[in-house]
Amino acid sequence: MSIAERIVAGDVRATARLLRDIDDQIPSAREILKELYPHTGNAHVVGFTGSPGVGKSSLVDQMALRCRQDDLTVGILAVDPTSPFTGGAILGDRIRMQRHFLDSGVFIRSLATRGHFGGLTRSTNDMINVLDAMGKQVILVETVGVGQDEVEIVNSAHTTVLVTVPGMGDEVQAIKAGIMEIGNIFVVNKADREGSRKTVRELRTLIELGLRHRSENGWEPLIVETEALKGRGLEELYSNIRKHREYLQAHPQHLDEVLWKRARTQLVEAMKDLALTTILQRLENRGVSLDDLIGKITSKEADPYSLVHEILDEELR
Amino acid sequence: MSIAERIVAGDVRATARLLRDIDDQIPSAREILKELYPHTGNAHVVGFTGSPGVGKSSLVDQMALRCRQDDLTVGILAVDPTSPFTGGAILGDRIRMQRHFLDSGVFIRSLATRGHFGGLTRSTNDMINVLDAMGKQVILVETVGVGQDEVEIVNSAHTTVLVTVPGMGDEVQAIKAGIMEIGNIFVVNKADREGSRKTVRELRTLIELGLRHRSENGWEPLIVETEALKGRGLEELYSNIRKHREYLQAHPQHLDEVLWKRARTQLVEAMKDLALTTILQRLENRGVSLDDLIGKITSKEADPYSLVHEILDEELR
Repeated sequence: MSIAERIVAGDVRATARLLRDIDDQIPSAREILKELYPHTGNAHVVGFTGSPGVGKSSLVDQMALRCRQDDLTVGILAVDPTSPFTGGAILGDRIRMQRHFLDSGVFIRSLATRGHFGGLTRSTNDMINVLDAMGKQVILVETVGVGQDEVEIVNSAHTTVLVTVPGMGDEVQAIKAGIMEIGNIFVVNKADREGSRKTVRELRTLIELGLRHRSENGWEPLIVETEALKGRGLEELYSNIRKHREYLQAHPQHLDEVLWKRARTQLVEAMKDLALTTILQRLENRGVSLDDLIGKITSKEADPYSLVHEILDEELR
Repeated sequence: MSIAERIVAGDVRATARLLRDIDDQIPSAREILKELYPHTGNAHVVGFTGSPGVGKSSLVDQMALRCRQDDLTVGILAVDPTSPFTGGAILGDRIRMQRHFLDSGVFIRSLATRGHFGGLTRSTNDMINVLDAMGKQVILVETVGVGQDEVEIVNSAHTTVLVTVPGMGDEVQAIKAGIMEIGNIFVVNKADREGSRKTVRELRTLIELGLRHRSENGWEPLIVETEALKGRGLEELYSNIRKHREYLQAHPQHLDEVLWKRARTQLVEAMKDLALTTILQRLENRGVSLDDLIGKITSKEADPYSLVHEILDEELR
């Protein structure tokens, strides 16, 4: 069996190996990704995003368990340096996570976020495709923050869950300014804290304002209050996630939109990366290194704007 | 006078216009950036980063005022959707900011963070260059979060200030996982809150662990407790920022490293963007649109990996 065939058959070791190669940007990974692509398109991709400390990992953990109760297989991708999945864990978190390792229906993988020159969005999309081809029915993606990378990653999800906690007025501002329009479900976690109802009201106001800009028969974003560690609100969150999936299946044009965005991101990022690799290779063939060019800029022998134009005129003739 | 000459002479309207053109990715901006480049390299660029709600804007605001007391001219760039500079402001913040608008020694500009396909890092670097060429002696850059974009932007700064607040254990984890190594000064803001000393101790431990990996005669990161709204710790923060500048001036190899990283990022990002533009233009000349290609992927007529290779083989021959 080829590596791709083993992955499609659900082989955990082959999958783990490929994901590592993607993370390390090993060129041969691309050949396997090509073979896997026809086997993608079946998973429900759910993105969880929010600031560090709001409890995304606990929610992802609980949703994974809940999916398993319905016999749904689960893949987890953590693109968050603070996630217990990626190593920024306190002991309790780590123990909670480990129960998944004993369950072959759950596959967990984290991504480094310190790679150079972007590529994070592309890697995440590639990894989603791998877990999808591997047969995972639900893929939970945890990302931190409101940066552009995170927004792009969330663009890859079919269903986006924005997580906040009570009493973070600035958080709600962040949601308003940056990513309000991409949230399908809003979670106020740690809802036992003071101010939870107020945060819910603020979110509701923002959603109502936002709905004016949405399409007529669109999905009306839902708000759920949860206490992940005590189990409160989790059944409601799970049922809302499933409800959003049903909504997408009943409204194929919305699903198409999600797939279109993801394909666009993937294509553009891959073109940029490959073009850069090509250009650097051609420069090297002429005995010019990236370091030589950087030196010209730092010494002010050249300005970066003219230099880039000269290089591309030369190399992409 | 050319536009570039007007900017170098400190013309606020010409500068504002160019920054808007950069944000809107107007091609003619590049010609002006070329002319400005030889006039850059004099400003001290200070990056402030941290989660929403930790009080970065208040600190930036106070540092701007303090610089003015020393007759230093100031540029402020906010790459943060929650910043009062960018519009995510509550009324009090907005009023505080407005005093700067009456002071011609301070120039404030915010960047949108919702642009497509990256470019945020590049725009920020371009804008730093503009404010530098305009003669601003200190440039304060406010960014949110721990995403990759933010790390790249912080890489552009000579001095990086990481801001947190007491009692965010996960925040400290984030610092540990993602950006510990790039912080020159750590601020525990809102230090009147419970747990401030504990957060300082945690940071100190992380710094000591981190120092083992740093160079022998490196800069030892400083920790400052502040209450931005009450003025506590601000003089200490300001003096530490100035101290770090003096350190860089006394250790040119460290300064060179910063400049090298910035030039590298700028060059690579610009090459990618320009290569993409070139490829899309060539495709268009052959009657192929980006939408056609995306359609091939979503319909599974092609896989994105092979398609990108075919396109680049064809267009970059």
